Amino acid sequence: MIPPFDDSYFMKKALQEAQYAFEQDEIPVGAIVVIQDRVIARAHNLTEKLNDVTAHAEMQAITAAANFLGGKYLRDCTLYVTLEPCQMCAGALYWSQISKIVFGASDPQRGFRIMGTHLHPKTTVVGGVLEEDASILLKQFFEKKRK
Amino acid sequence: MIPPFDDSYFMKKALQEAQYAFEQDEIPVGAIVVIQDRVIARAHNLTEKLNDVTAHAEMQAITAAANFLGGKYLRDCTLYVTLEPCQMCAGALYWSQISKIVFGASDPQRGFRIMGTHLHPKTTVVGGVLEEDASILLKQFFEKKRK
Repeated sequence: MIPPFDDSYFMKKALQEAQYAFEQDEIPVGAIVVIQDRVIARAHNLTEKLNDVTAHAEMQAITAAANFLGGKYLRDCTLYVTLEPCQMCAGALYWSQISKIVFGASDPQRGFRIMGTHLHPKTTVVGGVLEEDASILLKQFFEKKRK
Repeated sequence: MIPPFDDSYFMKKALQEAQYAFEQDEIPVGAIVVIQDRVIARAHNLTEKLNDVTAHAEMQAITAAANFLGGKYLRDCTLYVTLEPCQMCAGALYWSQISKIVFGASDPQRGFRIMGTHLHPKTTVVGGVLEEDASILLKQFFEKKRK
């Protein structure tokens, strides 16, 4: 039997959040936080609407998940995010001690890997899950912006 | 004539914020944002009270300053913070394109310099302003915690 809850299943929920961002004219990035196959936080990029560079999807998802759990650490949680986290978000994830990060598209310019941001030693990372869906949405957004 | 508004003048205001954090049993770090010798944001660490690893003084100060200015970029602004920023906060400052960062005490374990976090190319950094005051407050806090 194929387990119903795999990384693709949850990444689709993060992509749905990215779609909401797209529709609001925000750079389309979405994120969710999952614990024991249960979604406890969902968020999308709101930097334009809030006029705030800190309003990345991941930052909001971290805050919402901690609020749900009633504690600031996200041990045993997984973050699904459609784009590779930046330095700021990876730095926040470091503090959260999150167990796992799953991202879709890579960010070869400003992603945490090229920037050399350190994650918590207990955090594992999986990249490239539904990468193409995330990339297409981002490309469509920037093409629309150029018009 | 000695100019009344120098880095020490503003760092004292950040130290006052750190003192507020101390009194609320938070790791004592304070930050302010200044534009044209005018304080437009003040904040102190609230990670315990808010149960949120993202609630560092700098993050709140960035959000508050952007809110005051009505735009997300902090060009022409200076951030004064009592402790060297971490990866997350330096990453947020990168996005903000802030002109100048002035910090007090160094953080040789988790500061952005040892972690290799990239700042925006337009950002200048000054460290060590009223370093001892910031360090003493932090030491007092951790000594109190150990008791």
